[in-house]
Order: sequence, then structure tokens, then C-alpha cells
Amino acid sequence: MANTSSLDAVSSLCKRRGFIFHSSEIYGGINGFWDYGPLGCEMKRNIKGAWWQSMVRDREDVLGLDATIIMHPAIWKASGHLDTFSDPMCTCKECKKLMRADQIEDIRAEVAAKAAANGGCPYCGGELTEPRPFNLMFKTVVGPVDDPSNVAYLRPETAQAIFAQFLNVYSTSRISVPFGIAQMGKSFRNEVTPRNYTFRSREFEQMELEFFIRPDEAVELIYGKVTTMADQPDLSVPQKEWGWEVWHKYWVEQRKSWIVRCGLPKDSFVEYWQKPDELAHYARACVDIEYAFPFGQQELEGIAARSDFDLTQHQKHSGKSMEVFDEPLKLAAAKLDDAAKAAFADKVAAEWQSRGKDPEAARAFVAKLFEGRYIPHVIEPSAGVDRMMLALLCNAYEEQKLVDDKGKEDLRVVLHLSPMVAPVKVAVFPLVKNKPEVYNKAREIFEYLRKRTAAFWDEGGAIGRRYRRQDEIGTPWCITVDFDTLADGTFTVRERDSMQQTRMTLEQFKAMLDDALIF
Amino acid sequence: MANTSSLDAVSSLCKRRGFIFHSSEIYGGINGFWDYGPLGCEMKRNIKGAWWQSMVRDREDVLGLDATIIMHPAIWKASGHLDTFSDPMCTCKECKKLMRADQIEDIRAEVAAKAAANGGCPYCGGELTEPRPFNLMFKTVVGPVDDPSNVAYLRPETAQAIFAQFLNVYSTSRISVPFGIAQMGKSFRNEVTPRNYTFRSREFEQMELEFFIRPDEAVELIYGKVTTMADQPDLSVPQKEWGWEVWHKYWVEQRKSWIVRCGLPKDSFVEYWQKPDELAHYARACVDIEYAFPFGQQELEGIAARSDFDLTQHQKHSGKSMEVFDEPLKLAAAKLDDAAKAAFADKVAAEWQSRGKDPEAARAFVAKLFEGRYIPHVIEPSAGVDRMMLALLCNAYEEQKLVDDKGKEDLRVVLHLSPMVAPVKVAVFPLVKNKPEVYNKAREIFEYLRKRTAAFWDEGGAIGRRYRRQDEIGTPWCITVDFDTLADGTFTVRERDSMQQTRMTLEQFKAMLDDALIF
Repeated sequence: MANTSSLDAVSSLCKRRGFIFHSSEIYGGINGFWDYGPLGCEMKRNIKGAWWQSMVRDREDVLGLDATIIMHPAIWKASGHLDTFSDPMCTCKECKKLMRADQIEDIRAEVAAKAAANGGCPYCGGELTEPRPFNLMFKTVVGPVDDPSNVAYLRPETAQAIFAQFLNVYSTSRISVPFGIAQMGKSFRNEVTPRNYTFRSREFEQMELEFFIRPDEAVELIYGKVTTMADQPDLSVPQKEWGWEVWHKYWVEQRKSWIVRCGLPKDSFVEYWQKPDELAHYARACVDIEYAFPFGQQELEGIAARSDFDLTQHQKHSGKSMEVFDEPLKLAAAKLDDAAKAAFADKVAAEWQSRGKDPEAARAFVAKLFEGRYIPHVIEPSAGVDRMMLALLCNAYEEQKLVDDKGKEDLRVVLHLSPMVAPVKVAVFPLVKNKPEVYNKAREIFEYLRKRTAAFWDEGGAIGRRYRRQDEIGTPWCITVDFDTLADGTFTVRERDSMQQTRMTLEQFKAMLDDALIF
Repeated sequence: MANTSSLDAVSSLCKRRGFIFHSSEIYGGINGFWDYGPLGCEMKRNIKGAWWQSMVRDREDVLGLDATIIMHPAIWKASGHLDTFSDPMCTCKECKKLMRADQIEDIRAEVAAKAAANGGCPYCGGELTEPRPFNLMFKTVVGPVDDPSNVAYLRPETAQAIFAQFLNVYSTSRISVPFGIAQMGKSFRNEVTPRNYTFRSREFEQMELEFFIRPDEAVELIYGKVTTMADQPDLSVPQKEWGWEVWHKYWVEQRKSWIVRCGLPKDSFVEYWQKPDELAHYARACVDIEYAFPFGQQELEGIAARSDFDLTQHQKHSGKSMEVFDEPLKLAAAKLDDAAKAAFADKVAAEWQSRGKDPEAARAFVAKLFEGRYIPHVIEPSAGVDRMMLALLCNAYEEQKLVDDKGKEDLRVVLHLSPMVAPVKVAVFPLVKNKPEVYNKAREIFEYLRKRTAAFWDEGGAIGRRYRRQDEIGTPWCITVDFDTLADGTFTVRERDSMQQTRMTLEQFKAMLDDALIF
């Protein structure tokens, strides 16, 4: 199954078959905004549904959240977005053009060489201003008074709402650390140069999990040891002794296996481990899953070990304690005598100091641990719905040259989408339109199926033509109801990739769909 | 099943059990914004899923769309929102307070009578400014230049995106009028006074369908007649001869039966038909479905017959033709001779004139009809997710005084949610925790169920206590696995409302869930 896709072929199919349209197209469009058409929105729903099933429903240690896009602006102060979520921008003092400081050399390479070689404006050679930060958050005003005190922002990520509601979720759910909170929804970034089709848009959808874990020091106090990757742990089932490093790798593996289940082959993406100098100051590790898009290898999702940075920031800015109480931790600490406690505090202080952190803060932290209290650390798998969908479409697209019995060449466009994400799971055709028994039997099967899965009815044109229309949108199975169906209850099931046809009963077909969990 | 709810009892349960939290609560909250917690977001997903199933998946004449929240600002010019979507606001020249002009008398009634009786400021008696329009759309700026030409708005409704993408959806789907386009998603209105819990918020979620139909004149040309409500038509299956009036009533009935299926009793809401002087100038009819909320009878959703107003506006502002070509219409018109055509044009012109519309426009319209062309008319059922959820919660809430065998009184809080919308469909309990066979059998049943429906595991505390925790969140069934399960495969199924217990096998239980379409 060769991936013959180019971005043009994929985007042209997406427009032609109603997967993706440019937003506001009749008004000339709006740069960086894309709409999902009838098939696109079903596929997007499937991706989100699969994520939710895997991250929330299939687990007992993750809870869902659906927070607002506009939140109190203090959240973005605490998170650091207000101060640092920006691109550096220069203006040319002569031609007045605005450009991202980090893209000036790229622009210079693109623009015909009018510019001087002295590092001036790549368009006109004029003098550039110093780079100034341009914040990427969309700003608005809440309430009737247009006043700085009423400024609010559209969230640039779904993650912060999870931190802001951590206390509410934790205190209303009978759950204890380790546990996670998951959220899907729209985020907004005022990108200076949106590009690569739907890959970098100004309005996009995220699927984020914040998985809260014990600090390693708490694990050590309770279990006497902390499992690290050096122990070569089995990552299939979470263990209480795991430290942050194992939890992080566990989530990397979980996410990779979900991506494979959605339909991206294992060898189509890579794990990129950020180097120490690329990491945010609070991050312990960050892995980008990068997919080989037609425009280059780019981030599909990221899995970051963010320490207790976010909750600590919100504790500081809101004045509300983000500490949890951990009974087993308190009980474990109570068993230590003063000498053992002092030795433990010394060890932690030394370890923090070796990582450039304040040893006095370490001692305060340990004193809290002895009371059973800490701010949880967090592992954050953060995925983009639009990016996942684009990767799946690029991977699935194929133009096949077929030769029929008579030697006639034919081009088959097919989307090899997994049944889980395909917008239509099954198309139902009556072999003929003008025989009421066949027609009604086909309708009956269709009506039954579409209550339970995404089914599509097509009675127009030759069966071969109907197959092709379904191939192009990735429908895994087509059912044709004929005269034999009336006799023995079987119908023809045609499989998209192999184009093989098999006779099946409705019971057999249902069982196949139920196994694939799409029924 | 008495509805004993008050808004306070409902909102307190919602906070306590994680249905609904105030947004940004740790920062003192943000007025008019609400977050959905673990159970709330599942319930909201169920409501949206049920709407999508009923409006899109169960129908072959409706397609889905998922458009961006920020669109080209020309859309809001065309729709009229930029010029007229506003509340009139006054400022007091003395105390500088801002207030909605139409709420001044209400405020006066609330505020202790410092104010003069002369119609001045209700707070201080000062002189008020003339009312000035305050636009309810949230404004932002797209791109790096903060310039009037880059101003954009957060959509105040999902409907306009459907009109803006009408041409793309129509031309990429093999579909003909009548057909609909449905969309769910967030909308934003900068309400001056958000109130009544989640009922009137600044960020909310809509479920809107625009159902495009032939103008009555086209129906008449094709079928020689137009069915009106005077014909007392059967509304269960759409008919081609229906005029707008019947289509409108059809959608009112469709929406009412969906609301009932979600769990609101027929007698808990009313149909309010807007009076001619309440209708927008372009509207032919508008029905509000009003539910008896604890704070009064208020709109749950609206079903409007909006004529061809919206598409005509977008045609005018975008310069793109919104006309469809209707083959049967052209064929029907071709059969008329010149005299019949002239007579038809005269009749339509007279009818338009009687409704205060331009007879010359009517003739131009008829000339287009003869070519098989027209701008479709539209029926718009528009529902609010948050309002539906609030109505369902208010309706479902009950505090029951129970008396046990020993005469002891007990209060049972129960949410009588329909299985379709309940956040958890089934809870699975092992009777005892310390018998591995029973425990593992219960886990096995739970693992099977949760792949297919929303299942919850609870092993803590007495069975009665576990029932109560599920009653309070509306779980319809609880399964208890005991020693008999090991012998004969049956378990106890306890029904929430009746509290009746029945023995069932997994097969029987699955069949019951499958019938309810929640498996």
C-alpha cells in the first residue's frame, strides 16, 4: 500500500468530496481558518471519539473536562503565556512591512535580491526595528466596558483549564494520585504565518491529558524505591513504584500505540527526544512524535514531563493550595524515626542542588511530604486533532493504476483509512433499483445498520461506480443486496483495500463490526 | 415522579458531583462562563450525540458541518449582526454606571429608593445618557497588525457558517433540495447581564440545523399544488408537495419528539408561536419551545421559517450566486405555454404584493423559476446544549423521603435521567472485595461493558451506599456480581427509579441496552 500522496492531491480530494473547505471562502477566505465539511466533520468526530474512548472511557484513572475557551486572564499570567507566548517581530522603517525576526533570512532567500547584504529588510533593504515580542493570544473584551481591566484571551491551549479546575475535579471525584484529567476542544493562536494547509492554523482543536503523579520522593518514601527506565520495567500495566521517567515513557508508548490503532503505520512517525538545551526550564523531558508530512517531518503530538510547574504557578497566583493529601505517604513517613527523616531530607536536598535547585526549598518540600502533602507532578500528552486528521489523510491517500479483464487501464483513488476513523463504515447498495423485494430488503438492512454505525445508502449508477465513490472517501465495506439475499439472507461484502468480495449474513457482518468496536 | 427541584438544589448537586463548575473559580470566577466537570461533560456529549444521531445520522437529507468560530467579518455584515445585534445601553452622567436601557425600571425596583422619580439613574438619580447600541459580538484582531481592517468576531451563532458554506456543501454532495446542513459548536455573546446559572452565559454551545426547501411557488409549479396545514397533512414522513408552513410544523414536531426522547415530559414544555409583530421582517413564522425552568418559563429552542433571507444576504454581500438548479422545476415550467406562464407570474406578483413585497421582484423571481433556478428557503431548528442540559437536570432532580423496614427515615437524592443522556449507563459492583472469583468475574463483566457503553466500577462500601452514589448522578442500572453469578452467570440488575432488582444474564442485559441504542 504505497503512500503516493502529495499535499495537493490530498487537499484537492478534500475539497472535491467535502472533507475540508477554506473558511469564509465566498468572501475570499480568511487566512489560517479551515472548515470541516460533511465527511470531514464525521472523520474528525471519529478521531476525537477514539481519543476519548482510549484516554477516558477505557481507563478508571482519567476523568473528562469541558471548560470554556474564554477564562479569567489571571490564568494566562500564571501560565506564563501573557509574558512569554510570543514571536519576535521586526518592522522595516522604510517599507513598513512586518515580519517574524526568526524568519527574516528565509524571506530573504525567497525574495529577489533587491535587499542589501547588510541584514536590512529582505524586501527593500531598509533599516529594521529591533525585534519586539508579538503575543500569539487573541485578545477580546468581556462585558460592556472596553477597559484594560476587562481584557480576556481566547485560550491558546486546552491544558491550562485543566490546571485551573484541578482542585474542583480532585475534590468532587473519589480519586487519588496518580490520575489524569482530559480535555478536547478548540484553541486559538494568532500565528503570524499560518501555513501547510490545516497543519498550522489560527483556530485548531486539541486533545490534551494532564496526568498527575506523585513526586519521585513521595514514591520513594512509600515504597522504598523508585522504578526508573534503567530497571527496564514492563510498560503495559502502570505500577505504583514508577517514577516520573517511567510514567513519561509509558505515555509515549500509549500514545504511539493509539496512533497506530488509528491507522498510521509504526514506521511513518518517529520519536524525537528534545535535547536538554531545548527543554523548558521546568520540564524534565519532552518527546515529539513526528510524522513525515509531504511538507517535511513535523510534530504530530508532544508528551512532556512538566514537573509541578503548572500547579505551583496557579497556587502562587491564585493563593489557593494545590496540594493533595496522600494517606499512604503520611503513614509511610510516620514509620521513620528522626534520624531517618533527617537522612532523607539531606539526600533530597543534595539531589535538588545537583540539578541546580534550591536545597532549602527541597527541605521545605520534604517537610510537607512527611505530612502526606505535595503538589502533584504532571505528564502531558498533547495532540492536535487537525494534525492527526491531516496525517491520516496523507497516509491513506493512494492513486492505483488498475487494469481490467479487457486490458483497459483505470485509475482508482482510494483512502486506506482504518475503520475506526473512516467517516462512513459501510455503504449499502441494492443491486437493482426497480425490484421492490430487493430494494426493500436493502433498505431494511440499511435502516438497521445506520442506527448503530455510520452507514450510507447509494442506489445510483453501476455497482462499480458506486464502489469507486466509496473508495475515494475511505469506506471500508460495501454491501450489495441481490436476489440471493432474499433466498438465504446473505449479501456481498466488498472490502475496500483488497477489493475482495465475500458472502455474509447480517449476523456475521455485525459480529465483524462489533469486534472492530464500530458497532 | 415529582419534580422537586429548585435551581439551588440542582446547582449544588452539580458542583458537589462534578457536573458543572464556575469557570476560573480559583481566580474568583469570570461572570457568564461555566465549565463542565467529569460527569457534566459526559452528559453534554450524550446530548450532542443524541442530537447528531437524530438530525444527521438517522437522516439521508441532512449533512454535517464543523466550521470555525472566527470567520471573515463580512459574514456578520451580511447577516445583520454587525449593525443590529446589540443591546441599548445608558450611562449615568453622575455615577458613571452602565446599564441596559430596557432593564432600568427593573433595576429601579431592586435598588433602595435613592433615585428621583423623574426617570433618572436608578442608582443615584443622576442624568442618563441617550441609549447607545452595544454590540453583543466579542471582537478580536487577526494577524499581527492591530488595525480596523483586521478586526474579526467570535461567532454569536453557528447558523451563519452554514449559510457561508452552503455552496461548498451543496456542490460537493450529491444532494438536492430539500436537504439540510447541521452544525454543533461553541458560540459567544457578550451579554451585559449573564444570569440564571448556565441558562444565559457568554460562552455556550448550539446545535443548529438549516433545512433548505423549495419556495412554495416552485412546489406549485412542479406538483400543481402546495400542501398547507389547512390540508391537515400527516407529518410523520416528509412529502414533496409540502409548502414552507408544513415543513416548519414538521420540524416543530420532530424537535418536540426528540426533546421527549431525551427525557423531558410532554407537559413540561409549551409551544409559543411568535405573534406577527414579534417576528423578524423576513420571518414567516417562529416557534419557541419553552420549558418551565425554576426561574420561569424560558426558551429551550426555537424553530424559525426564515424565508430566503440569509442566503440572499450572502449572495448580495459576496457576489456569489446562491441559486440552486432544480431539474424537475425546469421540466415542469417547460410544459407551460406562454399564457399559463403569464398567469402564474401575475398570481405570484399579486400574492407578494398582498404581503407588502415588491411585485416586480416577484416577476423576476418567477422568471428564474421558469429556468429551474431559485435561492432555497430555510427552516431553522436552533437548540442550546447548555439549556437542554439544565432543563434535563432540573426535570430529573428529586429528593425522595424513604422509610426502611425498621421505620427509619432516609432521604434519597435521585436524578431521573433517561438512559440516553445519563453520564453513566451502568455501574458494576462486586458484592464482596475479598473473594477473588467474585471480584474477577465482576471485573470481566465490567471490562466487556465499558468497551461498548459508559460503565463505572465501584467496589467501596455497602451496596446500598453504592446505589445511592449512582442514584444521585442518574445511573439507570447497577449490576451486582455475587456467588450465584459464578454458578449460573446471572447477576442482580437494580433499576434506579423503581429500585427493583432482577436477575439477568449478560446476554439479556446487553439486549436491553441494545434496544435502548446505548450499547
